[in-house]
Amino acid sequence: MSDAPAIKPKPLGPVPGGYGAENGQLTIGGETAAALVERAGRTPLFVYSRNMLEERMAKLRAAMPQRIKINYAIKANSFQPVLLAMSNLVDGLDIASGGELDMIRAVGTDPGRVSFAGPGKRDAELEAAIAAGVTLNLESENEAERALAIAARLGQTPCLAVRINPDFEIKGSGMKMSGGPKPFGVDADRVPALVRHIVGAGCDFRGMHIFSGSQALDAEALVEAQANTLVLADRIASEAGLALPKLNMGGGFGIPYFPGDTPLDIGRVGAALEERFAELPDTLAGAELFIELGRYLVGEAGVYLTRIVDRKVSHGETFLVTDGGLHHQLAASGNFGQVVRRNYPLAIADRFDAAPEEIVNVVGCLCTPLDRLADRAHLPCAEVGDLVAVFCAGAYGASASPSAFLGQGPAAELLV
Amino acid sequence: MSDAPAIKPKPLGPVPGGYGAENGQLTIGGETAAALVERAGRTPLFVYSRNMLEERMAKLRAAMPQRIKINYAIKANSFQPVLLAMSNLVDGLDIASGGELDMIRAVGTDPGRVSFAGPGKRDAELEAAIAAGVTLNLESENEAERALAIAARLGQTPCLAVRINPDFEIKGSGMKMSGGPKPFGVDADRVPALVRHIVGAGCDFRGMHIFSGSQALDAEALVEAQANTLVLADRIASEAGLALPKLNMGGGFGIPYFPGDTPLDIGRVGAALEERFAELPDTLAGAELFIELGRYLVGEAGVYLTRIVDRKVSHGETFLVTDGGLHHQLAASGNFGQVVRRNYPLAIADRFDAAPEEIVNVVGCLCTPLDRLADRAHLPCAEVGDLVAVFCAGAYGASASPSAFLGQGPAAELLV
Repeated sequence: MSDAPAIKPKPLGPVPGGYGAENGQLTIGGETAAALVERAGRTPLFVYSRNMLEERMAKLRAAMPQRIKINYAIKANSFQPVLLAMSNLVDGLDIASGGELDMIRAVGTDPGRVSFAGPGKRDAELEAAIAAGVTLNLESENEAERALAIAARLGQTPCLAVRINPDFEIKGSGMKMSGGPKPFGVDADRVPALVRHIVGAGCDFRGMHIFSGSQALDAEALVEAQANTLVLADRIASEAGLALPKLNMGGGFGIPYFPGDTPLDIGRVGAALEERFAELPDTLAGAELFIELGRYLVGEAGVYLTRIVDRKVSHGETFLVTDGGLHHQLAASGNFGQVVRRNYPLAIADRFDAAPEEIVNVVGCLCTPLDRLADRAHLPCAEVGDLVAVFCAGAYGASASPSAFLGQGPAAELLV
Repeated sequence: MSDAPAIKPKPLGPVPGGYGAENGQLTIGGETAAALVERAGRTPLFVYSRNMLEERMAKLRAAMPQRIKINYAIKANSFQPVLLAMSNLVDGLDIASGGELDMIRAVGTDPGRVSFAGPGKRDAELEAAIAAGVTLNLESENEAERALAIAARLGQTPCLAVRINPDFEIKGSGMKMSGGPKPFGVDADRVPALVRHIVGAGCDFRGMHIFSGSQALDAEALVEAQANTLVLADRIASEAGLALPKLNMGGGFGIPYFPGDTPLDIGRVGAALEERFAELPDTLAGAELFIELGRYLVGEAGVYLTRIVDRKVSHGETFLVTDGGLHHQLAASGNFGQVVRRNYPLAIADRFDAAPEEIVNVVGCLCTPLDRLADRAHLPCAEVGDLVAVFCAGAYGASASPSAFLGQGPAAELLV
């Protein structure tokens, strides 16, 4: 009889659909994790599945009204092959910096399909975007003046839209981007005057951008936010005395990361939009209507593979120590915006279809207690040399983590 | 009369000593922030003060027993000029990866002065360290076997120490590294057997490493942890039946980041150590005794300078939007291990000695609500173009932040 208290497992997030097993090994796009690591030449490795990107887009197109256009927010994943694949799948791209402008140019995307949002655009970034013909989503009156002055100096007609800080937010949204004082966009009540001003100044007016939240899994909350978005856009356009050429309705479509999370019902979201689109007011009747998604398009199509370098026991608990960690998977470690650490979906890639046998902690190689990939996970037995797969690694993984921390450097990346 | 509720300021952390003002401008090492930015050619910019590094070390040496040796944990800041400066100031360096081994070689540090801790050392890293003559702080029995096998293959005598997971921790420590199940080190009760094993295998035995926590500001808690460390080291050495050639007592010396934090009383810590050293047991009487510090040595010597690119009002609150953000200052944004976001010390560098006049939010340029540098800070009025200084940026800033996020890229760095 042992005196040690029984260790209670903590649940893992749900593994997304689309992954298979071959002789017990996790497969991604039909290749085993081990084969992919051999191809990349090393771990840790991010693998992204082209097939899953395409399927996700196809299902989304089928669920959404035909009229809607879909933009990809490249901040979610700007690995060049992914960016190129997404550029060919979507209607437009959203960027958030001059660095991202360079990236979309490198893959040959027409800058006319690109819009640029971000509260701290430098003059040099405004200039590069205006010169390229990228649409600027203006975040303030001050930014509007700077953009108009730069365009005048360049002798170019700038493509300008106004980002609105709406008075509502997506209920239960993972990250609040609106409602109350915010650094994003212009408070709704000041937008009509700003629109009249930039139109009067002779810009190529590209309408409005309303982003009310992100990472929502509740379809009803999204439906309500989208309805509010259309009402707000109409109200502002009416006050400004013009019809909108374009409206970016924002995104907010979430993916399940944590135990208990269920997928967003995009059928419900699409059906509600279809109803709204049937009765659009005059100000929006002729508008190009966009949604802007990042995480939803790419998040579930990516897996982070890291190799177990040690298996150790401390005070009765087992630790699997990997060669990866928070330097590539900051959000999965629970240290990026989360208040309470919960487990992402994670599996032993070499025993993907095996039954759980033991409770282990999966940690990274960094010399900090923040570096955890799973707490008290119920998993098949794993040995040194086995591969661990962390799912939902396609968005805000590689580029949103401190890869230089402790001298580690970036992970490898593959699109298959 | 306004209907808006009065906005209550949130306090800022204490600005460290050693910074001056010249015509109202913050000076670092005698140069104004504006001159330093001009020298670097851009913002955002990390500036580190050589003079403050030297003063910190001089004061620490004066407070500590002469016998103690001081190691620098380069993970805190491995910017090459800082690393070179620190290498010349301290007795040894601690590294945490093969990447950091490359860094200490690049500045010409004798690998004999270097030790390597970290729970997930790959075989290639063990091999490079053994070949170079770096001391390995072994984190498990498995790692010991791998190191011995690699050394045998290389025909080299490995320099090995054992890292202990102690049964205590520094009380109130900012980050718990010990006490209970942990991925770091070997549980104390298994250490004597491991020590006998590696000594029997013919290694060059370098003693033990006991790290019980970090970021402690309470001298009494540190004094107690150090006393416990010496007792534990003696107990294990006695059980193993040998005297220790070296003991790394860990670090844990904190710096004030947040409102209400007060500096660690190093005089008290040094005096208590002096007393302990007067009555060391035989197992420790001949040992080289080390402390290992990172943040304490470099944290307050660094400032992050970022330029205001927009000043805007939303629902009655003012936002200063800078060209920097969490991609360089993840911890200051409140998103790296913190549960509750508190303000770091921060100032308007162009009005460093001016009285506070208004309450503002200072945010970064990223398109995410996580990107905050100060909430509701009471500051002198600042305009677009002014520089903001975030203090305590010398440790875990540049290298511990996701610099590629949203296509931004690294900040500039200067040692002056």
